[in-house]
Amino acid sequence: MNKSRLEAFSDGVFAIVITLLVLDIRIPKVDYDHLPDALIALLPKILSYVYSFIIIGVYWISHHNVTRLVNKIDSVVLWGNILFLLSVCIIPFPTSLMGEYPFKLIPVLLYGTSLLVANMIGFLIWAYVSYCHRLIDPETPKEQIREINKSFLYINALYIIAMGLMFWNVYASYTIFFSVLVYIILFRNRVSPAKT
Amino acid sequence: MNKSRLEAFSDGVFAIVITLLVLDIRIPKVDYDHLPDALIALLPKILSYVYSFIIIGVYWISHHNVTRLVNKIDSVVLWGNILFLLSVCIIPFPTSLMGEYPFKLIPVLLYGTSLLVANMIGFLIWAYVSYCHRLIDPETPKEQIREINKSFLYINALYIIAMGLMFWNVYASYTIFFSVLVYIILFRNRVSPAKT
Amino acid sequence: MNKSRLEAFSDGVFAIVITLLVLDIRIPKVDYDHLPDALIALLPKILSYVYSFIIIGVYWISHHNVTRLVNKIDSVVLWGNILFLLSVCIIPFPTSLMGEYPFKLIPVLLYGTSLLVANMIGFLIWAYVSYCHRLIDPETPKEQIREINKSFLYINALYIIAMGLMFWNVYASYTIFFSVLVYIILFRNRVSPAKT
Amino acid sequence: MNKSRLEAFSDGVFAIVITLLVLDIRIPKVDYDHLPDALIALLPKILSYVYSFIIIGVYWISHHNVTRLVNKIDSVVLWGNILFLLSVCIIPFPTSLMGEYPFKLIPVLLYGTSLLVANMIGFLIWAYVSYCHRLIDPETPKEQIREINKSFLYINALYIIAMGLMFWNVYASYTIFFSVLVYIILFRNRVSPAKT
Repeated sequence: MNKSRLEAFSDGVFAIVITLLVLDIRIPKVDYDHLPDALIALLPKILSYVYSFIIIGVYWISHHNVTRLVNKIDSVVLWGNILFLLSVCIIPFPTSLMGEYPFKLIPVLLYGTSLLVANMIGFLIWAYVSYCHRLIDPETPKEQIREINKSFLYINALYIIAMGLMFWNVYASYTIFFSVLVYIILFRNRVSPAKT
Repeated sequence: MNKSRLEAFSDGVFAIVITLLVLDIRIPKVDYDHLPDALIALLPKILSYVYSFIIIGVYWISHHNVTRLVNKIDSVVLWGNILFLLSVCIIPFPTSLMGEYPFKLIPVLLYGTSLLVANMIGFLIWAYVSYCHRLIDPETPKEQIREINKSFLYINALYIIAMGLMFWNVYASYTIFFSVLVYIILFRNRVSPAKT
Repeated sequence: MNKSRLEAFSDGVFAIVITLLVLDIRIPKVDYDHLPDALIALLPKILSYVYSFIIIGVYWISHHNVTRLVNKIDSVVLWGNILFLLSVCIIPFPTSLMGEYPFKLIPVLLYGTSLLVANMIGFLIWAYVSYCHRLIDPETPKEQIREINKSFLYINALYIIAMGLMFWNVYASYTIFFSVLVYIILFRNRVSPAKT
Repeated sequence: MNKSRLEAFSDGVFAIVITLLVLDIRIPKVDYDHLPDALIALLPKILSYVYSFIIIGVYWISHHNVTRLVNKIDSVVLWGNILFLLSVCIIPFPTSLMGEYPFKLIPVLLYGTSLLVANMIGFLIWAYVSYCHRLIDPETPKEQIREINKSFLYINALYIIAMGLMFWNVYASYTIFFSVLVYIILFRNRVSPAKT
């Protein structure tokens, strides 16, 4: 298994899962008179669609930022990558659930858990390949490795906080989820545009 | 993130969303005797399927015509592209709605809005990369840039007119939508076959 | 638009549509005691799934056999290809219909029509690019062009015969459809393995 | 048809079918109070999702390990590959069935059969290309060929045992299925990391 195959396969999976999300946005058969109400009732689904679309986009970019630095693929990376894709592919399910019950505890916990698990597996793969420059470009500066470590861990911490806040106040929880997105977009920009 | 990755990922998303459209063409379980009626009732869905298929094909070609000129990808382009794909991926939803309520105001407005938003984001990305030749091939003639600018803006104007006409007469509105397609096909042909 | 892009996009669409076919094979929620009956009732769907899977595979191979010879892409080929993909992408709909009403006239006619239209568009593209070696490799022997012409036209003729027989006897019609498959597999093998 | 096209198309199909699996994980519309019960009732579906995801990942890796050694594609390989993809693409159907009736005989038999058929077709293709080094790299050591032969046949034997045990005890059967996965992951690692 060479690196470009792994990337092409992963890109394919990302492209499909990001596109499949729209299949959940459907309207029950209603009279035209009730269409506006049905559309308004669909708003939570649309918002969770947009959030998941951007988050999967973020994971795709993050996947590239990591694989760009990797020189060699071994079995651990190969299987870790399949587990990572598994955790990304399941995201449409909690997304759908959160759109169905937007202000309830369980769906948001499941959604947060699935994002956390995906990010955690991503971190473990990164930790494995970057430890002592095991499989990454030997010229990668230690600072950059530390930056990426921090980025993964901060996001994990924020997800856990968001899920914890959920027990107290659902709006506070959503605020954190939203902040994670903003943080990732700004942080990733700072770390990896070098070779773009 | 290099350019070829961005293109491959975008191509994947385009290929998937254009293929997913067919999932909306389904027939309710009916006796064989009622099949002809059910098929005729499906005609609006089939027509909106064909229209969306071609429009997404148009956006795919347009995406290539622009990226072909681009030399470098920065964060703005990367995120702009994800937003653009988001607006393209949602097209199956208003397509389905328009097929369900073919001569009603709201679905056509939503459909027009989604096409307009996708085209507008495409224009903003193009404006960003082409302004002072920021990220495009420095040898791109100014005329060609102006042509592409015009093309985006004319189409936006036509979409807005089509949506406005909707309040007056649905057939006039559909006529404009159809003209946009013809205009794009002819216009794109004029602008970009040079390097094909 | 260069040739490799067109191919990659078309390959993506073929891969997706061939995989989406399985979404139609579903079982209604029944008690376990009624599962064997439900599975037997599903047999026509499974058979039409297998047939469509192989036919789309055939069209994919045929698409490659043609594009391999093509040197240049112009607007006509580009839009012809999008129409061709449109006709391939819609195949899951008549496939599903034929699986639902396996021995009835209308579904088989629609199925045959969709295969015929796809094959006809393929032929028109081929006729356009091969006429006076317009866009194909100038060293392509005239014999090979004639062989491919014949192959397209024979298959079209067989589809039309199969659809005609449908009015008389459904089993005769299915026999022709099956023969087309066997004919294509053997014929394509004869024409194009040269550079494999 | 050259090898890289065949691989790209196959990769696309694998990526799609592995991602489509999630579409089966859906929850019926219930009150929020009944959501926990509905989620627990979904557990068998989630487990069979995870198993199938990993098995398809395994088949993808196995596909690459074989194609990596192949030098030339002929018609037999081309059509064998389409049949192999057909058998992989149908996996979501028995997966869904097994998630619906987790401890019943028929679904597990169908699931086992579909895995067995896919693996058997894979073996036949491998036997065809590797016999007397017909289409594979002539420097492939005979030992490696024998190892791959054994790997296919052991897995087939285990699938058959798992399906046989099903008539006696469903848990014993699931244990074998799980062991196959562990065996494949460890065995494949031993055979093919050389050029990774």
